[in-house]
Amino acid sequence: MSTHPPLPDAVLLPFVQNALHEDLGQAGDITSNATIAADKVAKANIVLRGPGRIAGVDCARLTFAQLDPELHFLPCLSDGDDGQSGDVVANLKGPARAILASERTALNFLSHLSGIATSTREYVACLEGTKARLACTRKTLPGLRVLQKYAVRIGGGFNHRFHLGDAILIKDNHIHAAGSIAQALKDARQHAGHMVKIEIEVDTLAQLREAMDYRPDAVLLDNMDAQMLSQAVSLINGRALAEASGGVDLSSITAIANTGVDIISTSAITMRAPALDFGLDFID
Amino acid sequence: MSTHPPLPDAVLLPFVQNALHEDLGQAGDITSNATIAADKVAKANIVLRGPGRIAGVDCARLTFAQLDPELHFLPCLSDGDDGQSGDVVANLKGPARAILASERTALNFLSHLSGIATSTREYVACLEGTKARLACTRKTLPGLRVLQKYAVRIGGGFNHRFHLGDAILIKDNHIHAAGSIAQALKDARQHAGHMVKIEIEVDTLAQLREAMDYRPDAVLLDNMDAQMLSQAVSLINGRALAEASGGVDLSSITAIANTGVDIISTSAITMRAPALDFGLDFID
Amino acid sequence: MSTHPPLPDAVLLPFVQNALHEDLGQAGDITSNATIAADKVAKANIVLRGPGRIAGVDCARLTFAQLDPELHFLPCLSDGDDGQSGDVVANLKGPARAILASERTALNFLSHLSGIATSTREYVACLEGTKARLACTRKTLPGLRVLQKYAVRIGGGFNHRFHLGDAILIKDNHIHAAGSIAQALKDARQHAGHMVKIEIEVDTLAQLREAMDYRPDAVLLDNMDAQMLSQAVSLINGRALAEASGGVDLSSITAIANTGVDIISTSAITMRAPALDFGLDFID
Amino acid sequence: MSTHPPLPDAVLLPFVQNALHEDLGQAGDITSNATIAADKVAKANIVLRGPGRIAGVDCARLTFAQLDPELHFLPCLSDGDDGQSGDVVANLKGPARAILASERTALNFLSHLSGIATSTREYVACLEGTKARLACTRKTLPGLRVLQKYAVRIGGGFNHRFHLGDAILIKDNHIHAAGSIAQALKDARQHAGHMVKIEIEVDTLAQLREAMDYRPDAVLLDNMDAQMLSQAVSLINGRALAEASGGVDLSSITAIANTGVDIISTSAITMRAPALDFGLDFID
Amino acid sequence: MSTHPPLPDAVLLPFVQNALHEDLGQAGDITSNATIAADKVAKANIVLRGPGRIAGVDCARLTFAQLDPELHFLPCLSDGDDGQSGDVVANLKGPARAILASERTALNFLSHLSGIATSTREYVACLEGTKARLACTRKTLPGLRVLQKYAVRIGGGFNHRFHLGDAILIKDNHIHAAGSIAQALKDARQHAGHMVKIEIEVDTLAQLREAMDYRPDAVLLDNMDAQMLSQAVSLINGRALAEASGGVDLSSITAIANTGVDIISTSAITMRAPALDFGLDFID
Amino acid sequence: MSTHPPLPDAVLLPFVQNALHEDLGQAGDITSNATIAADKVAKANIVLRGPGRIAGVDCARLTFAQLDPELHFLPCLSDGDDGQSGDVVANLKGPARAILASERTALNFLSHLSGIATSTREYVACLEGTKARLACTRKTLPGLRVLQKYAVRIGGGFNHRFHLGDAILIKDNHIHAAGSIAQALKDARQHAGHMVKIEIEVDTLAQLREAMDYRPDAVLLDNMDAQMLSQAVSLINGRALAEASGGVDLSSITAIANTGVDIISTSAITMRAPALDFGLDFID
Repeated sequence: MSTHPPLPDAVLLPFVQNALHEDLGQAGDITSNATIAADKVAKANIVLRGPGRIAGVDCARLTFAQLDPELHFLPCLSDGDDGQSGDVVANLKGPARAILASERTALNFLSHLSGIATSTREYVACLEGTKARLACTRKTLPGLRVLQKYAVRIGGGFNHRFHLGDAILIKDNHIHAAGSIAQALKDARQHAGHMVKIEIEVDTLAQLREAMDYRPDAVLLDNMDAQMLSQAVSLINGRALAEASGGVDLSSITAIANTGVDIISTSAITMRAPALDFGLDFID
Repeated sequence: MSTHPPLPDAVLLPFVQNALHEDLGQAGDITSNATIAADKVAKANIVLRGPGRIAGVDCARLTFAQLDPELHFLPCLSDGDDGQSGDVVANLKGPARAILASERTALNFLSHLSGIATSTREYVACLEGTKARLACTRKTLPGLRVLQKYAVRIGGGFNHRFHLGDAILIKDNHIHAAGSIAQALKDARQHAGHMVKIEIEVDTLAQLREAMDYRPDAVLLDNMDAQMLSQAVSLINGRALAEASGGVDLSSITAIANTGVDIISTSAITMRAPALDFGLDFID
Repeated sequence: MSTHPPLPDAVLLPFVQNALHEDLGQAGDITSNATIAADKVAKANIVLRGPGRIAGVDCARLTFAQLDPELHFLPCLSDGDDGQSGDVVANLKGPARAILASERTALNFLSHLSGIATSTREYVACLEGTKARLACTRKTLPGLRVLQKYAVRIGGGFNHRFHLGDAILIKDNHIHAAGSIAQALKDARQHAGHMVKIEIEVDTLAQLREAMDYRPDAVLLDNMDAQMLSQAVSLINGRALAEASGGVDLSSITAIANTGVDIISTSAITMRAPALDFGLDFID
Repeated sequence: MSTHPPLPDAVLLPFVQNALHEDLGQAGDITSNATIAADKVAKANIVLRGPGRIAGVDCARLTFAQLDPELHFLPCLSDGDDGQSGDVVANLKGPARAILASERTALNFLSHLSGIATSTREYVACLEGTKARLACTRKTLPGLRVLQKYAVRIGGGFNHRFHLGDAILIKDNHIHAAGSIAQALKDARQHAGHMVKIEIEVDTLAQLREAMDYRPDAVLLDNMDAQMLSQAVSLINGRALAEASGGVDLSSITAIANTGVDIISTSAITMRAPALDFGLDFID
Repeated sequence: MSTHPPLPDAVLLPFVQNALHEDLGQAGDITSNATIAADKVAKANIVLRGPGRIAGVDCARLTFAQLDPELHFLPCLSDGDDGQSGDVVANLKGPARAILASERTALNFLSHLSGIATSTREYVACLEGTKARLACTRKTLPGLRVLQKYAVRIGGGFNHRFHLGDAILIKDNHIHAAGSIAQALKDARQHAGHMVKIEIEVDTLAQLREAMDYRPDAVLLDNMDAQMLSQAVSLINGRALAEASGGVDLSSITAIANTGVDIISTSAITMRAPALDFGLDFID
Repeated sequence: MSTHPPLPDAVLLPFVQNALHEDLGQAGDITSNATIAADKVAKANIVLRGPGRIAGVDCARLTFAQLDPELHFLPCLSDGDDGQSGDVVANLKGPARAILASERTALNFLSHLSGIATSTREYVACLEGTKARLACTRKTLPGLRVLQKYAVRIGGGFNHRFHLGDAILIKDNHIHAAGSIAQALKDARQHAGHMVKIEIEVDTLAQLREAMDYRPDAVLLDNMDAQMLSQAVSLINGRALAEASGGVDLSSITAIANTGVDIISTSAITMRAPALDFGLDFID
């Protein structure tokens, strides 16, 4: 199976329309309209300006198509490909005004999503040789979660919950309100649908021991150092998925993975990934 | 005058509703619903987890209010305030379920916008003692431009164009299509409304000289080194605003500012600013 | 914990606004406007016209509030209560025009959702004394799934998947495309996020045996008779959740439950539940 | 003229997009993406699983087209056709993932709308040989009225008011507020536009006599038995349309029709019609 | 009964939000934000700048409330009142920035709607002493029909069809396609719901005679001079409503009314009504 | 360069969809559906019914395409062309029902926008031989500003601000709140982005003198007579753009232009322009 199933155009289109609406404003591209003839046809390339993993080609394609369905967009690279500075991502041919009116919107999608995919790829590379998977979190930019989680997958990562209704994740505040780990897990089991997994966050091995008696599907080991993570993994002994979270960066992640945890989750890839740079060059 | 006029709630609300819709999904907060009693009232603080400039308090307030209009939100810091790790941003009191169901959405707004404001503040600090202003660009995240440009203002920066219809900015592709700098500027002057400024991007001093004959309102000096920027500023001699762009980072910006340019623009503050971390702590 | 956590008003409001828009049309309530004075205040009761379980009171409340925020709505019964014909569900007091303009919309919500809750309750009653839970499916009315699944919960049922991204459910077409049950389950495990459960549909005990080697979280036993279901439950032996589906009606469900399955799913409660009748009576 | 004019795609599309959005969620069809290759092409038939009248083929067509415009959809039956269990409604050919991702949404439209059309057809069949027409009411499911009223027409029924602004229907509460039947009808006549019909609901022959003096376009005879209906029809004597309402079911409707009323209205066909079952079968 | 029932706020709000969104753009009121302190409170009056009939006060109220719910708006005149130049329509008190940011949007609603109401009133005044009513048409501005038809009612006019589904109006193209007036009217009667009126447009008395045999509810007498209108009215003799259309202006309308027609319809009041002027004055 | 760059379809489509939704209602074109066969194909012309400048052809094209993408629309005139009564604007060929269902919506766009373009053209013609340009204002119809400002451009006019965030325009209330003209201009300069122009409204020459010391980009000379305007132009002496506003009509505009002002702005073209009449004629 492809590890990179694309998002359907029907899902992407509202994002594209919203972004174009934002950039066209009420007056449209007044610069191109003033300086370029309506019938001027141009060829252009979208070019990568640094090394990274490509994500967002479909968003770019749809952006140009919104301005002019006849504008020809030929992708040279696909989401999931790794490129170098100077690589051509796509060829464009069509009315110069339409190309320029959609350029910035298209590149903004590519830059942001490829930035996430590239960052994710770096983290995932650190996990090679371990069984750990990288997962993103619900720390995402407001309104962009669908796209950001997609870019994480393109980078080789996995998605944790998409939203609060996907799965149960019991944190300290829930435990406090329920009275105990035991009670919270019993309540969760009683109310959850049968296709809903239950995870619980623990800070200590004592908490972990209490939790394991109630057979959670997964345990989030919060801010534990490598030594404690190893002990936790031993204690869990395969009865639940072990997820490490907190203090994850490129310098710490391999050691965390070597503790034997199943998942390492981080918000760095969605909240701190720098954009990857792209340009649009007219060609003769 | 306040340098930080807030965005009206009517502008913020669609962003908040969209983000909440994204995080509540179709089933809502199934964890809190399963583990916390409906009538459980909680007090909580939103706490800053690192030093930075606060932006997004109104978004946070509206997020909690959407879940429960009766939930009490008392801000302790305002947008534009500088905070330290541990500072309390706001006090909350209300149904525990409502607080937890909106927590992540509210914090995502705060984290992203404060990250931008904090990064902008760092850049702006480098300009002290010069006349240069920092400006953001149209390189922003799709759909979030209004909020990101607001956060830039909170950080002490200024906004360049919001969209393609705000002002005319003639770039190399326009010049090429129009035939010459002279023709492009004449076309722009003829078609632009009288409240629309005209800026032109130049790469060389020769281009700059040609452009100045047609009296642009501003000139974007693209990717010039400090020496060439100084020459450009002399050549312009106050007849247009001088904007430097390209190669701007925290190590280069002061030297650029010292050339005497009026504006320094960068996408780093909107496309590469790391989020600022916030937490929500229940209190007894 | 409450077994009936309400949907937040922020979730309900778009449904209410859409339904009101539909019923007010462009001219509004021309009958009430023509025949009733603007300042006429009325009192009214919403009355149940048959026995059943109430669902939709919040929708009704919001509907009246949309027409006039000052209109007083005092609920006498809550979602999850069981009522008899003649029971008063809520008292209303306010402008007669506003009451009548929103009456039909409010009652349509109540009738449909209470119909589902009532039907669900009937099915659930047949499961008493067994460990089986009743679950709804993705066979729901277009655009109303959130509300329908809520009403199922109010009736004592549980929700299966909300949508295609919630959980993995491998059906015959997937097995056929993947080549085998084994391959489909391996693919699913490899690609699924760690918080995603995996269920597989089987028609025969042979298929079930093959599936169990790959440790699915749940097995959908499709259209099996009670005898085969019993054998399947024995074969599974607690290693996965056993879900029976197909041929479920009020006459068959108890026998199915007695086979020891964990979940019985049916679309009857969302696609065939008759509305419960409500009326609005003016009182003096 | 065709008795079954279709709804324009521009009207159907928002319903289809909303329903797909609901079923795709944020992660899309994770089962098909995990288990089926991106380039796998499949053929499939939509098959009727019981006898009934077809409605919703255009909704199904648009649903599949949203997922993939290249997916080939060839209808074998049209809205208004009567089918038997096993009849093929449409042939599909296209990417297997796209077919499976849209299957449930498409079938939900077909099932619900065909259920209404089938139920309507049953009621209409009982009216054969009489002059009575069957009409639906404003008791419909929130947000689905346009589609439900369409399905009623496909079943051979007629539509009463679409919304409160279509026509004037004076009920007991209006009469009470206006002071008398006479006053209510005079007010209605004075305020109504000239293309707006006026109907009044009456419970007794005395009310009917009073109403007829003011020449309503139609009279709603509420909850009268067959004998009283006959008397009412005589009394009206063709001066207004006679509509019977209340207590209408398949066992009573023929007797009601034989009283000579012009219209019989019921909410059973929109609020209590069971779905018609459809399946999607892959073929080799 | 009031002849001026207001539109519910729930109906007006989307218009107000859309218009405000249009005028605030992405940067908001940068003039007021730059020049007026955030805490500056102002009092202001909305003042009529010419004689006319007021319409749109609720739109204005909602516009200001969107910017700041605390802004105090006290209406002095109501929709349907006739005012003179200098009359105060409403008093405002609140943050100066909020008042100025919403001023133009609020006044645009008032100006346009009051312009229509004023123009309608002029036409209606010409009908005094006749039985004719003035009606608007479906010639309205795209997206503003609900508001424009409301303003017509405020001016004393009546509404013809709101849209194509309200009533049947058979025009020349329909007659041509159906084959004859007789056939078109028979088809219409057969397919129309029982609450739908049928009107037919005729150009000649011969057409009128043919039409009357099929008992239309109304006849649109298109572009007939006063003499022919009188003959048409005699011929109709009360068996249908007589509507005159075409060539209607302030100089011709009284003569047309004197022919005895029931309705005179014109698009002048919605497509050619000049705006009424309003201003907003700060007071000390 | 073309002086008439069209608005992209992506910008027009929401207007077209909204207007069609308004005119189709919930039941669609019940007249055409009842009287015209589904397979009836017709040819028709859109015909101009008076002299004027055409604007809105793209809106018309998109309207028909929404009803039926196969409907053939061949424009004979383009936006910006001047036509006479009887000129054919476009040929149509397609299903008669689709043509008639979209006719009114398409013509309403054409009528309104061409009315504005025609009125603008009349004003612009009065400026011939002067350097003055005609500009529209923010006095526009709620929700239609983008289209109205486009029609002004088609008529040969220019656009003033699109919204409050485009540019700074300091009026009397801002001056009053800031304390003085000097303070308001200093505040504006300090807070405005570098691509934002600053204009100030003055009533007297004394105010003008004070303003000129702070180098505004433009000055709005409010309600000055021709003599004072001439003095103002002399005083400004090319240091700022001079805009005349107030009391502008077809009889006064040439004299105003002859004073040497750069821009003359008026709301007459957006708030008082009568619609241009168009018809749709079936042809054999």
